[in-house]
Amino acid sequence: MSIAETGEFGLIGRIVTRLGTGEATLIGPGDDAAVVKASDGRVVASTDVLVEGRHFRRDWCGAADIGHRAAAANLADIAAMGAVPTALLVALCVPVGLDVTWAEGLADGLTAEAGLVGAAVVGGDTSASPTLTIAVTALGDLRGAAPVTRDGAQPGDVVALAGRIGYAAAGLTVLSRGFRTPKLLVDAYRRPAVPYHAGPEAARLGATSMIDVSDGLLQDLGHVAEASVVGIDVHSDAFDLPGQMRDAAKALGVDPYQWLLAGGDDHPLAATFPPGVTLPPEWRVVGSVHDGSGVTVDRKPWTGGLGWDHFR
Amino acid sequence: MSIAETGEFGLIGRIVTRLGTGEATLIGPGDDAAVVKASDGRVVASTDVLVEGRHFRRDWCGAADIGHRAAAANLADIAAMGAVPTALLVALCVPVGLDVTWAEGLADGLTAEAGLVGAAVVGGDTSASPTLTIAVTALGDLRGAAPVTRDGAQPGDVVALAGRIGYAAAGLTVLSRGFRTPKLLVDAYRRPAVPYHAGPEAARLGATSMIDVSDGLLQDLGHVAEASVVGIDVHSDAFDLPGQMRDAAKALGVDPYQWLLAGGDDHPLAATFPPGVTLPPEWRVVGSVHDGSGVTVDRKPWTGGLGWDHFR
Repeated sequence: MSIAETGEFGLIGRIVTRLGTGEATLIGPGDDAAVVKASDGRVVASTDVLVEGRHFRRDWCGAADIGHRAAAANLADIAAMGAVPTALLVALCVPVGLDVTWAEGLADGLTAEAGLVGAAVVGGDTSASPTLTIAVTALGDLRGAAPVTRDGAQPGDVVALAGRIGYAAAGLTVLSRGFRTPKLLVDAYRRPAVPYHAGPEAARLGATSMIDVSDGLLQDLGHVAEASVVGIDVHSDAFDLPGQMRDAAKALGVDPYQWLLAGGDDHPLAATFPPGVTLPPEWRVVGSVHDGSGVTVDRKPWTGGLGWDHFR
Repeated sequence: MSIAETGEFGLIGRIVTRLGTGEATLIGPGDDAAVVKASDGRVVASTDVLVEGRHFRRDWCGAADIGHRAAAANLADIAAMGAVPTALLVALCVPVGLDVTWAEGLADGLTAEAGLVGAAVVGGDTSASPTLTIAVTALGDLRGAAPVTRDGAQPGDVVALAGRIGYAAAGLTVLSRGFRTPKLLVDAYRRPAVPYHAGPEAARLGATSMIDVSDGLLQDLGHVAEASVVGIDVHSDAFDLPGQMRDAAKALGVDPYQWLLAGGDDHPLAATFPPGVTLPPEWRVVGSVHDGSGVTVDRKPWTGGLGWDHFR
């Protein structure tokens, strides 16, 4: 049944029945606004928007996959402040001819991804639109910790990374060339595996800065370098190149470091820590902070693409 | 200069310089997420999306007007819970050919409207899109009060309204017929005058339910009636029909009660109060709550249109 047939309130009714309740939900969907616990007197909030044709394609990802991706992109931003996500709000703009089961699948994906951290979709809005668009706002709770911003990196710090990198970009290249395998890479693009708990963990470990890598590692570390007024050097030998990624790169004629250093969509967390810190195994050191500016790879400028600009 | 020329970061840079700081802003735009005060350990949150051609037309409203409207629609939802708005987050999807000054004007409108309540735009996201789309999330602070939901209306309660009603719908009809006057009505459509402070005031006065009238009074009171499991009767003689509205209705061949009872976009607040409450002059009684279900006008079913469905 198309959304033109269900109407606005029919669509909302079908979606709302699929949304769970999060640990922090005080009032969920159905009123003018939701009410969510913000236990330490502050709330962390971030918004990311996904536009069909630019951030996703329906022939490459199922509705639930896109829900997972939309939620992950936002939840990762909350984790990157050192906070625990508590809630999502979703503005969904859909062509009226869209089948309502697609919207239901999206809601399922959003709900499942939020559920990984005990959060839930607590509110939102829908509208018809010629362009399928999903704008998500995530809320989070710092639980008494200081937020970890981008501007605290110090010369001498190490740069460490938690979570997969390059997988999603490789999967996107695979899909864009008309292939559906290797499954490892394609699935990584379809559903990121974000190490949400590593964000608050980094805060406890004394991270001096942190960022969600969504637009490419070098570009996002560039934001840290600029905000912190430091230079950052990335060590290319710190990256494991999984066999399937190496093989795919060879088969497709791509430099796999382009995926690792400039690819987005995996949403790992990158943080800087004081020298000498003992990091849990999930955090691997991939670079260092020095006096100066900009980001280099093995002390040299990177000549590949830097990352993603959503208008170019 | 078009947004294709400024690029994503150029656009964001130009917008961010125009955003102020709200009273509750702890960390504003520029990091992975914003941090906003939520002083009583809870945060109120609501999302509304505006799509070009469906919620606004650029030839009918300037960029700043649309910013005012997008902010007002969301801030009113916060007020309708009895809360004080603290922050906005904005996802902006724009055609790449759009002039960047339009986005700057939008940011100015959003900032000015939020500033009316001491709030500010604290974060957001941008993307290119064929369809100009503005998704706004508003946050708010209940300051220790209980949220006023839709489900507490009791038989015997009075229904009261704060703020203008019918003006914006009249202005929209005027514009849609190709006219630009009366200015009072057209301006009301372009920039709602929302009685934000009346929301927390109603909570203090013991409101049993409250809703932001955004889709038409009868339709929105229908949500209250349904959630509260009561019937609501609206008294048509309680409404003042301003002279310019009466004249415009006559000239355009429209029943002005269609504007009053089924028009949106003014964002007045409708609340129910226990009988015998003494209301400040801003709140005027327009109806009553009784045992039963549904919404009537002068004890009779309303035969005009009920309100707005964003898919029809």
